Amino acid sequence: MWRATIFTLFPSMFPGPLGVSLAGDALARNIFEINTYDIRAQGLGRHRAVDDTPAGGGPGMVIRADVLAAALDAGLAAADRRPRLMLSPRGPALTQARARALAAGEGVVLICGRFEGVDERVIEARNLEEISIGDYVLSGGEIAAMVVLDACVRLLPGVMGKEASGFEESFESGLLEYPQFTRPREWEGREIPPVLLSGDHARIKAWREAEALRVTRERRPDLIADVGKPR
Amino acid sequence: MWRATIFTLFPSMFPGPLGVSLAGDALARNIFEINTYDIRAQGLGRHRAVDDTPAGGGPGMVIRADVLAAALDAGLAAADRRPRLMLSPRGPALTQARARALAAGEGVVLICGRFEGVDERVIEARNLEEISIGDYVLSGGEIAAMVVLDACVRLLPGVMGKEASGFEESFESGLLEYPQFTRPREWEGREIPPVLLSGDHARIKAWREAEALRVTRERRPDLIADVGKPR
Repeated sequence: MWRATIFTLFPSMFPGPLGVSLAGDALARNIFEINTYDIRAQGLGRHRAVDDTPAGGGPGMVIRADVLAAALDAGLAAADRRPRLMLSPRGPALTQARARALAAGEGVVLICGRFEGVDERVIEARNLEEISIGDYVLSGGEIAAMVVLDACVRLLPGVMGKEASGFEESFESGLLEYPQFTRPREWEGREIPPVLLSGDHARIKAWREAEALRVTRERRPDLIADVGKPR
Repeated sequence: MWRATIFTLFPSMFPGPLGVSLAGDALARNIFEINTYDIRAQGLGRHRAVDDTPAGGGPGMVIRADVLAAALDAGLAAADRRPRLMLSPRGPALTQARARALAAGEGVVLICGRFEGVDERVIEARNLEEISIGDYVLSGGEIAAMVVLDACVRLLPGVMGKEASGFEESFESGLLEYPQFTRPREWEGREIPPVLLSGDHARIKAWREAEALRVTRERRPDLIADVGKPR
């Protein structure tokens, strides 16, 4: 079973949306599991404090190295070899290739920060790998952790059908997907492109390839240079 | 009040993690609201079908234009001027600048796809704007919608303190954040960098700027060319 362990100050957020639909079904069938560890269990003093003011001043609060390290040490076996990813806008971006690599492994450890950040020393001392889901700021790592999990879980064996996996490889060609259409044939005066109704598989394939290239050129010219590289 | 309306096949996913912590507090204080519209309410026939097979063949199912259009027409007032964002890996990427622009408006309409996609005709006919949260594939748009909402909600007036907003502007300089430290001064043989304990604000500021530049150069050289541009 693929195992996710999540270090968070808000364990009640999980599984949340991952308990529904595709991921929820995989969870119910024991294809993967989610365990949470409440960082506050290692908090200090009567108020179980987990954070303190930034050294050198500045706004917000920083999660203490000693508290987070104690949580990781208590929550993970010494022999645990899963990647330890800390969600942070400072990390390199999650890609489809990385999601596929994570899904092919034993699972993942996800550390959710809050406040202004986490003491740098625990990141180094406990080999945490920062990872970002995009160039924007969230209120914490929890929803970002759900993004990582959803991207991985749908790739686990048995979650999607074989056909869908084939589609996946097509996305990984590095192009955006061609436009999709379904019934009805005519709607509000708009027709499905006739080629898609022709039954001519070679023409359909050529049309879709050309459309994928057109859409990618228009919307994400930065991807064109990367075509053929795994994303 | 800032209003989010979400079109989804899984309304039970909301507010989910947005009902907890910073966003949950803002929700409870009526700083914003989330309404969901169940697309299946407009589904066809006894089984309330919302999707059909792709024209031209291929795996998976495509959400029907007529069903999604009926949901949008029933769920939104004609005069509603909020942006209509459809979560999709085919869209341009969410950025911090876009989150700030959305937060400054009246709110947002979020359309969550599932299956292989949505009939292209409804995207055009109902002026849906595709938006991506990153270059990876999710099982549906719901968790991506939560990312957009979390990025926006923390920027709404009254959600964070004034100080934190100042920090925000610093992130928007286009550099990654400098390393953070907090008590204890020494932990597992690792010390807080002495400059941060010097009380010399000019030196601390210079050190942080140099560190932000170093971290960005090491991890995200692509951002260096963009320094100064809003992200």
